[in-house]
Amino acid sequence: MGSTSSDRATMAEIAHAAGVSLPTVSKVWNGRADVSEHTRQRVDELLRLHGYRGRRQWRPDSAGTVDVIFPEIDCAWEGEHLRGIEAAGHAAGVRIVVSSLDRGETARRQLVQRLRAGRTDGAILATVTAAGPLVKALNRMNVPVVALDPASRTAGDMLSVDAANFAGARAAAAHLLALGHRRIGLIAGLDELMCSRARRDGFLAAHDDAGVPPDPGLVERGGFDFPSGVVAGGRLLDRGTPPTAIFAMSDLMAIGVYEAARRRGVSVPDQLSVVGFDDLPGARWAAPPLTTVRQPLREMGALATRTVLGLAGGGVLDTQLVIRESTAPI
Amino acid sequence: MGSTSSDRATMAEIAHAAGVSLPTVSKVWNGRADVSEHTRQRVDELLRLHGYRGRRQWRPDSAGTVDVIFPEIDCAWEGEHLRGIEAAGHAAGVRIVVSSLDRGETARRQLVQRLRAGRTDGAILATVTAAGPLVKALNRMNVPVVALDPASRTAGDMLSVDAANFAGARAAAAHLLALGHRRIGLIAGLDELMCSRARRDGFLAAHDDAGVPPDPGLVERGGFDFPSGVVAGGRLLDRGTPPTAIFAMSDLMAIGVYEAARRRGVSVPDQLSVVGFDDLPGARWAAPPLTTVRQPLREMGALATRTVLGLAGGGVLDTQLVIRESTAPI
Repeated sequence: MGSTSSDRATMAEIAHAAGVSLPTVSKVWNGRADVSEHTRQRVDELLRLHGYRGRRQWRPDSAGTVDVIFPEIDCAWEGEHLRGIEAAGHAAGVRIVVSSLDRGETARRQLVQRLRAGRTDGAILATVTAAGPLVKALNRMNVPVVALDPASRTAGDMLSVDAANFAGARAAAAHLLALGHRRIGLIAGLDELMCSRARRDGFLAAHDDAGVPPDPGLVERGGFDFPSGVVAGGRLLDRGTPPTAIFAMSDLMAIGVYEAARRRGVSVPDQLSVVGFDDLPGARWAAPPLTTVRQPLREMGALATRTVLGLAGGGVLDTQLVIRESTAPI
Repeated sequence: MGSTSSDRATMAEIAHAAGVSLPTVSKVWNGRADVSEHTRQRVDELLRLHGYRGRRQWRPDSAGTVDVIFPEIDCAWEGEHLRGIEAAGHAAGVRIVVSSLDRGETARRQLVQRLRAGRTDGAILATVTAAGPLVKALNRMNVPVVALDPASRTAGDMLSVDAANFAGARAAAAHLLALGHRRIGLIAGLDELMCSRARRDGFLAAHDDAGVPPDPGLVERGGFDFPSGVVAGGRLLDRGTPPTAIFAMSDLMAIGVYEAARRRGVSVPDQLSVVGFDDLPGARWAAPPLTTVRQPLREMGALATRTVLGLAGGGVLDTQLVIRESTAPI
């Protein structure tokens, strides 16, 4: 689906490409009989080409259940994702079963056993590494799988839902550069995660755009969580010539930078501008309210649900820079 | 179960009261045959008396599913509750289905229909009003129900899991009084919620204990959320003689007070001490880290799961004052 955020747009494209009306595409999609076999075949083929896994099967033996699998259930992303997943599940008439993988290998095996025994219409893997033995087991069981914010590049035919990480990080860095900052610290996430690499590339691209060489001495690594933001932010602030602004690849790390600044008597944004990534509810509650890149976490969850049910084909949803009070001109 | 936090303790009490060993109680509980009928009846009666709904039925037609119903899925309490619910569900071999009621009457009706059609081993109502038509429908369907942090007094035979709200608020206010504060503002939650009334009573009891009359002019009402904390905190700080300390009945409202203070140039804790309630992860991330009353939200979720499965009898879990950096002597 590339960067298409709405499957309705794609449906219209398919209608256009097939030379039929949008209602006709919808009829094929819904398995209605009042479409010629010729048209049905052509539209079906285009639907498959655009990543639709085939139409939603309202089989009498449908489990009526979608499983969502988190690495752990946390109050950060997971809650927002789940909100969208549950709403879309409600709209589609399926119930949402929640599982966490934070109990290791045994938990994973039990989960696979349960899915095999209990039947499911599909599994949403939320920020879970998309390779791994779990996916292999699900594939063997013919369980449809969607990667939500995939940690790694997904296998060939796995649909995924993601946010525009590159564009978001580029907008964040461009905002700081436009405010006159030239020494911008970067607190990166784990390099093995796809989103970290995309955000780092976006950060560098904004520097390229502005003709400002990024300082490789102002990069620290964190784990997306609050404590690592405190540590990494402290290291940046303790440099001989500290940065005047910091872009952290998550809101929790950005709020960790606040704490590192507070401990050193550095005022945000007067002495240090800070930008985060995610726009969790806590970004609005931070003092000062945090400038950050909004990921549409709920919408991503809803699209993942619709995708795993064959009602959409995945996609990359737009991110948006939300300017609040943690950034100021130098 | 009163204030018993561990059902193992209760099992031991039942063994003592019945004059049998703990393994015998366990045998009765698990429906084992190698217990005399006389003993079985006596222990069964005691188990029922102590709130056990009868032993866990490992029926072949068991749904293997527990439903948890939230008023809405949010990143505050709900995420922490869910973490404990999911872990206990995993341990008991049942899957956890999540539903939200934030779509109103239609959603409630659809939920009831789904529970009727899809079978469930029980429903956890998380911070949901325990009276209401949902509970009546579940009762008619003979679905076991547990109220987790019940919003209202539960009906006669409904088991519930709660935190020690009165004791927690009393400890919070006693802490502020021991620091020398005499003008302590209170930001209360909605009066119709059981937890709000208990926390208000605890706040007043600490004043009684210390012989300090509480100032009824220093009470504001909030909705447990961040924006209402900003508004209520601002009203208290704008009084002719503002309070030197504020106890907010939730962490989110306490962090709203931080924002109100920041906007007025009032420094926490130098010029204003703040105490919250909940100990959400965000309490540790606040600048300064928030002194608050810890509710064991995960443990409450786990106990609710075990209770709805008949493995425990509900109860009231202890709260604990966690002193961080938002409170100081006057």
